[in-house]
Amino acid sequence: MNKYKKIDKNVVIEKRDSKICESIEESIKRSGLKDGMTISFHHAFRGGDKVLNNVMKIIASMGFKDLCLASSSLASVHDEVIQYIRSGVVTQIYTSGLRSKLGEAISNGLMEKPVQVHSHGGRVHLLQSGELKIDVAFIGVPCIDKFGNATGSKGRSQCGSLGYAMSDAHYAKYVVMLSETLEPFPNTPASISQDQVDAIVMVDEVGDPSKIGEGATRMTTNPKELLLARRTARVIENSGLFKNGYSLQTGTGGSSLATTIFLAQMMEKKNIKASFGMGGITGTMVYMLKNNLIEKLIDVQSFDEFAAKSLGENPNHIEISANEYANPSSKGATIKQLDVVVLSALEIDVNFNVNVLTGSKGILRGASGGHCDTAAEAKLSIIVAPLTRGRIPTIRSRVHTIVTPGETVDVVVTDQGIAVHPRNVELKKRLKKAGLTIVDIKELHERAIKLCGQPKAIKHTDKVVAQIRYRDGSIIDEVYQLAH
Amino acid sequence: MNKYKKIDKNVVIEKRDSKICESIEESIKRSGLKDGMTISFHHAFRGGDKVLNNVMKIIASMGFKDLCLASSSLASVHDEVIQYIRSGVVTQIYTSGLRSKLGEAISNGLMEKPVQVHSHGGRVHLLQSGELKIDVAFIGVPCIDKFGNATGSKGRSQCGSLGYAMSDAHYAKYVVMLSETLEPFPNTPASISQDQVDAIVMVDEVGDPSKIGEGATRMTTNPKELLLARRTARVIENSGLFKNGYSLQTGTGGSSLATTIFLAQMMEKKNIKASFGMGGITGTMVYMLKNNLIEKLIDVQSFDEFAAKSLGENPNHIEISANEYANPSSKGATIKQLDVVVLSALEIDVNFNVNVLTGSKGILRGASGGHCDTAAEAKLSIIVAPLTRGRIPTIRSRVHTIVTPGETVDVVVTDQGIAVHPRNVELKKRLKKAGLTIVDIKELHERAIKLCGQPKAIKHTDKVVAQIRYRDGSIIDEVYQLAH
Repeated sequence: MNKYKKIDKNVVIEKRDSKICESIEESIKRSGLKDGMTISFHHAFRGGDKVLNNVMKIIASMGFKDLCLASSSLASVHDEVIQYIRSGVVTQIYTSGLRSKLGEAISNGLMEKPVQVHSHGGRVHLLQSGELKIDVAFIGVPCIDKFGNATGSKGRSQCGSLGYAMSDAHYAKYVVMLSETLEPFPNTPASISQDQVDAIVMVDEVGDPSKIGEGATRMTTNPKELLLARRTARVIENSGLFKNGYSLQTGTGGSSLATTIFLAQMMEKKNIKASFGMGGITGTMVYMLKNNLIEKLIDVQSFDEFAAKSLGENPNHIEISANEYANPSSKGATIKQLDVVVLSALEIDVNFNVNVLTGSKGILRGASGGHCDTAAEAKLSIIVAPLTRGRIPTIRSRVHTIVTPGETVDVVVTDQGIAVHPRNVELKKRLKKAGLTIVDIKELHERAIKLCGQPKAIKHTDKVVAQIRYRDGSIIDEVYQLAH
Repeated sequence: MNKYKKIDKNVVIEKRDSKICESIEESIKRSGLKDGMTISFHHAFRGGDKVLNNVMKIIASMGFKDLCLASSSLASVHDEVIQYIRSGVVTQIYTSGLRSKLGEAISNGLMEKPVQVHSHGGRVHLLQSGELKIDVAFIGVPCIDKFGNATGSKGRSQCGSLGYAMSDAHYAKYVVMLSETLEPFPNTPASISQDQVDAIVMVDEVGDPSKIGEGATRMTTNPKELLLARRTARVIENSGLFKNGYSLQTGTGGSSLATTIFLAQMMEKKNIKASFGMGGITGTMVYMLKNNLIEKLIDVQSFDEFAAKSLGENPNHIEISANEYANPSSKGATIKQLDVVVLSALEIDVNFNVNVLTGSKGILRGASGGHCDTAAEAKLSIIVAPLTRGRIPTIRSRVHTIVTPGETVDVVVTDQGIAVHPRNVELKKRLKKAGLTIVDIKELHERAIKLCGQPKAIKHTDKVVAQIRYRDGSIIDEVYQLAH
């Protein structure tokens, strides 16, 4: 028809007619990226991500400098970022997690500006408040159509929920989608929809879904972890919340995940059905959905292939954005409806503060994740951890890094006994009555020290290498450069 | 547990814990509504809406003045608004449509400020540009949960797509949901989700879905309309676009709707399957989806009970927001992917301009709708109308009100012949070759005048009562106060 649209001739609109770019480089050019801007990535593929390194390589080769790298998290596969920090391409980082050599290098003072470590809910709060302004979001997705409708529930590299990417796409000024499979328009249902997408690049691979778990979501066979899990399930059983319609989230970590199995058994026996299960969703949760033990699964991130598959098939397995999941300034974060959350810890202190970020040597090697978000909002937040790991005490006088404040923790389950936050008088009575071994957390601390000896103080300089942003944006703790 | 959340004690957040209000009055108080603000409503229930009048009555009784009423459209049921204009409660109106006594009263100069008539896409553009700032949106929905997850696909008053409400909810500062049925949390899939909702009020009725059609979507038995429909289907058949994977939208109006029936027959015969059907979705489109003649239905508004039911049941029947449908400054409006649109008209002029707003006496009695949006973007835009209605010519020397500019119209189908826009040389050849009667639009005009005589000029004053905003926000025409 070759139609002349007199009034609607708008160059910007016309250009949008073809979103598909020939290369990543072309998409970067189209995005208007400039030195000093902020770029974002998402971590649905965790250790299997193949987007961040590829895009960063091209950005570096194009000569960009002084960028802020805001990835919803960073996995061990992202050690390549070190070189871009060294060469001045990346001068600032916002992330939920830091691990591996990158975490080590930053702990040793690689960066001038401290890394801003946010929680999953806190990231959306920073986006909403305007502190974190994403200029260009690079979003890897398993499949897409020519107009940008994308999902993680189909395609060769099916990763499941795109919850974190959904919030980035919502707030980013310019959204570049990278994908492997071009589906016919309209590719529905879409997790990220056409009206959020500016450019599309087809690439060979966006990620390896087999690496999503990255160890953190494996099912444990460790006897101590199984003991912890059984004990945690009993805490839930006797908390007063374990009844028809209750809701549940379990975090990553062997004991936390295994708890679900024991709970499922109890629920079958007692004929209890949960209203919803949330979180990083795993195969166990999918099992519970299929076996009518849970009404609905609410999924911000699929932690394994079973979860990814179920999300695409089961209408009661629902994808939500990070904003719907945990943003404290969201109009409706689902964690506000949550009864029980089971979380892991690297360290817990006598004030119930929890560290999930720095290891025993003070090195950045974990992630804030949804830890502080869920602990703050769930009616019952349970931290499960062994009293000691090797010769290292888990219970401390003061955790090296506070990620989750003790005020938001209700119960700490260890292999040497269960500590209940002093505030929870009624809960303590209930658990005692059920025959569970309740001990003071200070006693747990003393036992740990008896077993392992007082841990050596970590030597550090005065330079701050990471600031821990609580979910409301405040700085709750700082990590210092290690001294050798 | 009665947990003390030291860090997260945020009064605003705490208040949000219960969104459910006892009454509409309470929701208005919570919203912080003040004189001079803008309130919005949506028109999914069209003539069956029971929200706007109820809310306005309470707003008026609470003594508010000088409000801007921004409803995505106004139906004949909204004549009650007249009294609120008279009493100074409403002093400004944004809407896609105006009808009945309200349209007549405004045509006669009821309001000081001219009504701003926008298209469906143009409304979102005005929201996005910031001209139209919704302070409080009142959104009626058939069902909802306690946290705000709402849908039109379930519940007693199932209305189907909430497309227009979705965009209002996205942009409004404060969102009040009114609903009839409280579903268990989480009520999924949700069209409007918990993180867009501030307050919820349960009411007896939000709408009568049997009145959604309001005459505009009836299936015709009128022989002239059927002739027009058959002819329109033949234009599409011979346009060069009628092939596997083509896409289609039909508007309201007897001939436009009936076209779908004839097309369906041709598609069955020729073994052609459309990639998508869009628009206000009707039972005919649903029939085509079910019979494998259309791959997917894309639904911004369900025009009858069949469409509403199908949206809730068929995964290939997709709900989209007004932004995804037609906003010219959206990153991805589906109309940009549309091949053919069939639209009706009150008047068409020799320059192909179309009036769908004012009647033969110059009275506001129609709606801009998606008319100019789809005409501008579809590869082939067909206007179908009888040459005359009673003793009134449809083809004019100049339409009384330009809603859709002639530059965006391709073909006009009348019972006395088909006019092709002079720009479409190739299309004209094709249609002629197919044996269709092609005439110059000026010739159609002359015939109409011969039959009816030259229509009397409409007398008006200098006062502007309505400004017609084109989809890009510009003023494309003005309507003057009638002089008697």
